[in-house]
Amino acid sequence: MTTRPKAIVLLSGGLDSATVLAIASREFDCHAISFNYGQRNVSELNAAEQLAQAFAASHHIIQLDDGVMTGSALTDSTIGVPETGLNEGIPVTYVPARNTIFLAHALAVAEVHGSNDIFIGVNAVDYSGYPDCRPAYIEAFEHMARLATRAGVEGQKLSIHAPLINMSKAEIISTGTQLGVDFSLTVSCYQADQQGRACGLCDSCRLRRDGFEAAGVPDPTIYR
Amino acid sequence: MTTRPKAIVLLSGGLDSATVLAIASREFDCHAISFNYGQRNVSELNAAEQLAQAFAASHHIIQLDDGVMTGSALTDSTIGVPETGLNEGIPVTYVPARNTIFLAHALAVAEVHGSNDIFIGVNAVDYSGYPDCRPAYIEAFEHMARLATRAGVEGQKLSIHAPLINMSKAEIISTGTQLGVDFSLTVSCYQADQQGRACGLCDSCRLRRDGFEAAGVPDPTIYR
Repeated sequence: MTTRPKAIVLLSGGLDSATVLAIASREFDCHAISFNYGQRNVSELNAAEQLAQAFAASHHIIQLDDGVMTGSALTDSTIGVPETGLNEGIPVTYVPARNTIFLAHALAVAEVHGSNDIFIGVNAVDYSGYPDCRPAYIEAFEHMARLATRAGVEGQKLSIHAPLINMSKAEIISTGTQLGVDFSLTVSCYQADQQGRACGLCDSCRLRRDGFEAAGVPDPTIYR
Repeated sequence: MTTRPKAIVLLSGGLDSATVLAIASREFDCHAISFNYGQRNVSELNAAEQLAQAFAASHHIIQLDDGVMTGSALTDSTIGVPETGLNEGIPVTYVPARNTIFLAHALAVAEVHGSNDIFIGVNAVDYSGYPDCRPAYIEAFEHMARLATRAGVEGQKLSIHAPLINMSKAEIISTGTQLGVDFSLTVSCYQADQQGRACGLCDSCRLRRDGFEAAGVPDPTIYR
């Protein structure tokens, strides 16, 4: 039996990263990483653990200092999560430098595990206007990462895979469904309760619900 | 009185970052950040605190997950720190993706503090062969960082300042001396003891001692 290459998959426990894990699992032995960074929604970490198990991926929750990525509605309980629909501009749910911190850790984990492949579920179509979800950002991170580590010096090419980047939410849901993702395990809501039940009103809930409808897939989300 | 712009300074407590803090303090109100990442040498964090005070900078120690940047002689006590002098290639004291993780956090802190200026004491001349100390790496990080955050979207230009990048260790020591750095506060040794006393044998001690000699500045290091 041929040994499959290893990949590091950023797994938040949401719909997008669950689909990315399913995509990566076709070709790679996956090591999933999640982050505890003082986020409002910690039920997503339980979801991530269950998703990793479902795809036989090893899983590691990385503890970040919760005093760093502050000033966002997702990390500061005094800032309300918007419930009236998407607006222009960068919303208050944007978390400062979050994907850069996540990918930087993934880069260290990849180096320690001898992997040259990192997967992230960013999406530039049905997304919330975050700067660190844009294709140019991912390309720039990849270029930087190729210079940053031992692998780059030794001529190996690290790749940042963002397979969802040009998909609509409906396409992501269709792809995940085909690949056997149990979306009932996933938590997307920015303010899910301890049991992972969704508010149905935040931007993430709206994008998710519209996605299931457009994909013609029954929405398994439990709303509170 | 004009308000000076804010800068975020990565302050390890070593000779290089102390000099960078002195340089940045001439133009900026500095917020220094240090990291606790399971490193062998924790006395450097005490040194960082004293240096920040000496330059009237605010200071914050960020706690990282010590299970991430593993496999280095600086983070794993079962790997010995080399004591026989510098060799070709990347040494075992290289810490996976360390500067990327540090700069990623600095980027978040800069965004939260409304700063567009990050200072780091990397040096491409008298250094230990680390990939993430090369000029091309710093340029690539800066390019990525300009795309990563709200500031970039709003047309502000984040800068990663690496003022030591082309200096020799002797030049760094001369510059720091002119700017009033008390080098007796700094700890460079990879395996300093609890009191910050140096081994005199590791690569960092060798570069430091040679630097003081070449600069013609008395070496204030306390060797154990």
